[in-house]
Amino acid sequence: MVRDVPFAEIQIGDKASMAKTISDYDVYGFAGITGDFNPVHVNDEFAKTTQFKGRIAHGMLSAGLISAVIGTALPGMNAIYLGQELTFKLPARVGDTLTATVEVLEKIEAKKRLIFRTTVVNQEGKLVVDGKATIMKK
Amino acid sequence: MVRDVPFAEIQIGDKASMAKTISDYDVYGFAGITGDFNPVHVNDEFAKTTQFKGRIAHGMLSAGLISAVIGTALPGMNAIYLGQELTFKLPARVGDTLTATVEVLEKIEAKKRLIFRTTVVNQEGKLVVDGKATIMKK
Amino acid sequence: MVRDVPFAEIQIGDKASMAKTISDYDVYGFAGITGDFNPVHVNDEFAKTTQFKGRIAHGMLSAGLISAVIGTALPGMNAIYLGQELTFKLPARVGDTLTATVEVLEKIEAKKRLIFRTTVVNQEGKLVVDGKATIMKK
Amino acid sequence: MVRDVPFAEIQIGDKASMAKTISDYDVYGFAGITGDFNPVHVNDEFAKTTQFKGRIAHGMLSAGLISAVIGTALPGMNAIYLGQELTFKLPARVGDTLTATVEVLEKIEAKKRLIFRTTVVNQEGKLVVDGKATIMKK
Repeated sequence: MVRDVPFAEIQIGDKASMAKTISDYDVYGFAGITGDFNPVHVNDEFAKTTQFKGRIAHGMLSAGLISAVIGTALPGMNAIYLGQELTFKLPARVGDTLTATVEVLEKIEAKKRLIFRTTVVNQEGKLVVDGKATIMKK
Repeated sequence: MVRDVPFAEIQIGDKASMAKTISDYDVYGFAGITGDFNPVHVNDEFAKTTQFKGRIAHGMLSAGLISAVIGTALPGMNAIYLGQELTFKLPARVGDTLTATVEVLEKIEAKKRLIFRTTVVNQEGKLVVDGKATIMKK
Repeated sequence: MVRDVPFAEIQIGDKASMAKTISDYDVYGFAGITGDFNPVHVNDEFAKTTQFKGRIAHGMLSAGLISAVIGTALPGMNAIYLGQELTFKLPARVGDTLTATVEVLEKIEAKKRLIFRTTVVNQEGKLVVDGKATIMKK
Repeated sequence: MVRDVPFAEIQIGDKASMAKTISDYDVYGFAGITGDFNPVHVNDEFAKTTQFKGRIAHGMLSAGLISAVIGTALPGMNAIYLGQELTFKLPARVGDTLTATVEVLEKIEAKKRLIFRTTVVNQEGKLVVDGKATIMKK
């Protein structure tokens, strides 16, 4: 669902999350949309020889889950994405279940802006992506 | 194709680009992978009522093109994505032709790291996404 | 539907066809599966500057329609694709309606093989792809 | 990335390759684009009863990887695909890692044409597709 949380109701500390198991559909689809056919994403034989010991999801795919939380849950409709800082901490593999969470750190009333901490963790609770988002809520 | 540019050969000022016209395949595919079904991306009727006057691509989809340049062209194979800062300047619409470019700003020899300026511009040369990437080249 | 035409019933001169209007889904999907992001397929601005005056479908996508006729209509199930010769005569554009036709030219009883003439024509009846297929019917 | 190798720089014996592990995304996507829903590609239960003992990729999907090497690596931009001969030697299964390679056999200066040998091999080095392509480089 897509929520539409009014700016006035949003409090520092508010959180929202979504979780998804990453499938080959996701990794191959993302490669097919962006053109990122780096072999660590689409070549099993190559990927086995890397430090990752197998294919991994594109970092920006994990970041896309953050975008989904912002665009559908907090604040949802009429969110204007102004900026995102991302630090890629660990790779995500096909089969990993990722939980993307956003948490309100700051509220800038005059500009209707929100600063979120944005994280993606895997099924073991390990941090895959860390960062901050800047959002305007119309 | 996927290049494999050795760290030693990369110079400050080196650039690489890719360009793609954003289609509904891209926007709907990206929504389907991430779950970001914000109506500004997938609902024509709603999107017409917004400041954008129509559906726009996900900001993170444009960012995905940056990932593709890094993963296939500069430095290509064995690039490890460590971080990305993104500022979303303008929306991209279905039908816009986006060119993602990365340019080497800094080379940190000891850590085999590269700092890129990363931009996405549309067919009118207007800046859609600006930012910086931090990459390690194995 | 998928037919299963017995080898014994197939006559020289037998034909089967399928037709499809080529959409952006097809061209972008084909690019995304194969990695063929040549700009004549996915970049409107570039494609306008070519002799084709716009984006064209991948030739092998048109050839894929021939594969579909063989695999679903004549002979359908248990067709083993042994070979295909293709001549690309004209480009197909998004919006073109292509009709792929196979016609039995030869029947090699001892080996259960069939030689087809294989064509793809557009909505103006112009030949887009010409060629021959060699099929074994189990 | 998409290269643009000038005709004058291309030498007999030049090669380029790409490799990809074939996933269900590829086979189902290819079926959805072409309409080739032959059960050997999309029906596990049927495919187990065939000589292949399981689902196989469309031969023309493997051929599509050849198209990708031509369109993105050698010669890349402004390649005009004139013809392709294909011999299907072995099936490719979901999970196989295919490497498509093109090698320049002939250069016809007057017509700016190139004849390539085109092969697709699997992760065991076995030949899946053999053939020849005729390309004009504008």
